[in-house]
Amino acid sequence: MDPHSRVRDSFARQAFMATIGARLVAVEAGRVVIELPFREDLTQQHGFLHAGAVTAVVDSACGYAALSLMPAGQGVLSVEFKINLMRPASGQLFRATGKVIRAGRTLTVCSGELEVVGEGAAVVAVMQATMMAVPEPPTD
Amino acid sequence: MDPHSRVRDSFARQAFMATIGARLVAVEAGRVVIELPFREDLTQQHGFLHAGAVTAVVDSACGYAALSLMPAGQGVLSVEFKINLMRPASGQLFRATGKVIRAGRTLTVCSGELEVVGEGAAVVAVMQATMMAVPEPPTD
Amino acid sequence: MDPHSRVRDSFARQAFMATIGARLVAVEAGRVVIELPFREDLTQQHGFLHAGAVTAVVDSACGYAALSLMPAGQGVLSVEFKINLMRPASGQLFRATGKVIRAGRTLTVCSGELEVVGEGAAVVAVMQATMMAVPEPPTD
Amino acid sequence: MDPHSRVRDSFARQAFMATIGARLVAVEAGRVVIELPFREDLTQQHGFLHAGAVTAVVDSACGYAALSLMPAGQGVLSVEFKINLMRPASGQLFRATGKVIRAGRTLTVCSGELEVVGEGAAVVAVMQATMMAVPEPPTD
Repeated sequence: MDPHSRVRDSFARQAFMATIGARLVAVEAGRVVIELPFREDLTQQHGFLHAGAVTAVVDSACGYAALSLMPAGQGVLSVEFKINLMRPASGQLFRATGKVIRAGRTLTVCSGELEVVGEGAAVVAVMQATMMAVPEPPTD
Repeated sequence: MDPHSRVRDSFARQAFMATIGARLVAVEAGRVVIELPFREDLTQQHGFLHAGAVTAVVDSACGYAALSLMPAGQGVLSVEFKINLMRPASGQLFRATGKVIRAGRTLTVCSGELEVVGEGAAVVAVMQATMMAVPEPPTD
Repeated sequence: MDPHSRVRDSFARQAFMATIGARLVAVEAGRVVIELPFREDLTQQHGFLHAGAVTAVVDSACGYAALSLMPAGQGVLSVEFKINLMRPASGQLFRATGKVIRAGRTLTVCSGELEVVGEGAAVVAVMQATMMAVPEPPTD
Repeated sequence: MDPHSRVRDSFARQAFMATIGARLVAVEAGRVVIELPFREDLTQQHGFLHAGAVTAVVDSACGYAALSLMPAGQGVLSVEFKINLMRPASGQLFRATGKVIRAGRTLTVCSGELEVVGEGAAVVAVMQATMMAVPEPPTD
């Protein structure tokens, strides 16, 4: 399976992405983009996107950016990440981008961000993440 | 409104917590516990709880631990956090605990964790988070 | 005092920068560069630059990038940072760059990196940091 | 070599620890303590211990806590860490403690802190760190 198909296939098995309404919109070598439309049921107490929903899509974008550069037979796990929530996640559509900064044999370091799309586009959050390659069980 | 009611009230307005099925189970001064039962629709590609769902409940537990010590008229925002995902989040019930390490006038530092409840209980993830006090608009 | 003089002045009062041999080499609005020549007495057990020395210069670069955008009468404190050490810090000269990603009234978010200068130039470490404006006592 | 000797031996080869005046004061399985006396030449612009000096000792304490549990023939590298600087590092003597939270085959997660020792003892900084086991070249 080519790397892009592998990412699309794995994304399709992330039930949580479907639950929150996230869509995989771009897969390149070392770069993945996921979009998330605003929904009332994803909010925190002030009506903005909850940090957990923000994190979910930026983490998945980073993880799949890492996976896109891994050899066949490997899967990806999030080791850890750190995220700064710089502005309220207010808007109708959000775009999470994950990029590989350094791909190692075991560990891959990624940077990610979440932007509001459209008028007044702005970066809402930035992430720095460590991903790990793990042997992937065959999926049939 | 007393601090505990304030936390319960704010939690009830976090629509995302209802969406993922999280329950506020304990509120003390500087410590908050949230439980999250496993659901298939919260998983990542290997069938474990997605890092975004893990993060959502640990972040909320930390944020409300911070809020529990803030004076009336203040609300809480997540400035940033870092989480280490130490084991696959595998199990039927998860418990997120947030604790205040240092409460300042503007910033509060918290530590959080997610445990699997029941047989083979284990800590799945640990968080270190910075929360910020913000003036809370009156909710009527 | 103009922002650049303010950064140079404050850097000159960071005794630790002199102790490790770090030099402030560039100050622009929202971007600061510090260089650190390799020295045997800055190493860890494998002979590479110690993570503490790496962190010291990247943190200072981020802090002064933040300060460069703050109004007169304000000083800067590091609230927190996260650093990924991606390669051994091996080489003769290192360059730390700090950039402001988001400048708020109280908090400023920065990204930083440490590169090896010269042949085989490479990014050794990346940082994501939160800085805070504090009232600065007058220095006469 | 027993684990404690291995830690002491490696610490002795960290030239940077001698440069800043840090002393290894306790090594147990999964827990290491390092002390750092205040010195004027370790300060930032307000006369407090520089975040780089704080980080250096807490990182070393975490790294050696991880190493203390690793099998013979392995060395330790810092993959990444995050530190919150909660108070000015003001005092005459500081104590850094690193503890293992989760020891894996490749990665070990640690928590660390820096306290001011003596009257008005207080936790100045808290760290969450990821350490990695690497094959250690023989030292003769």
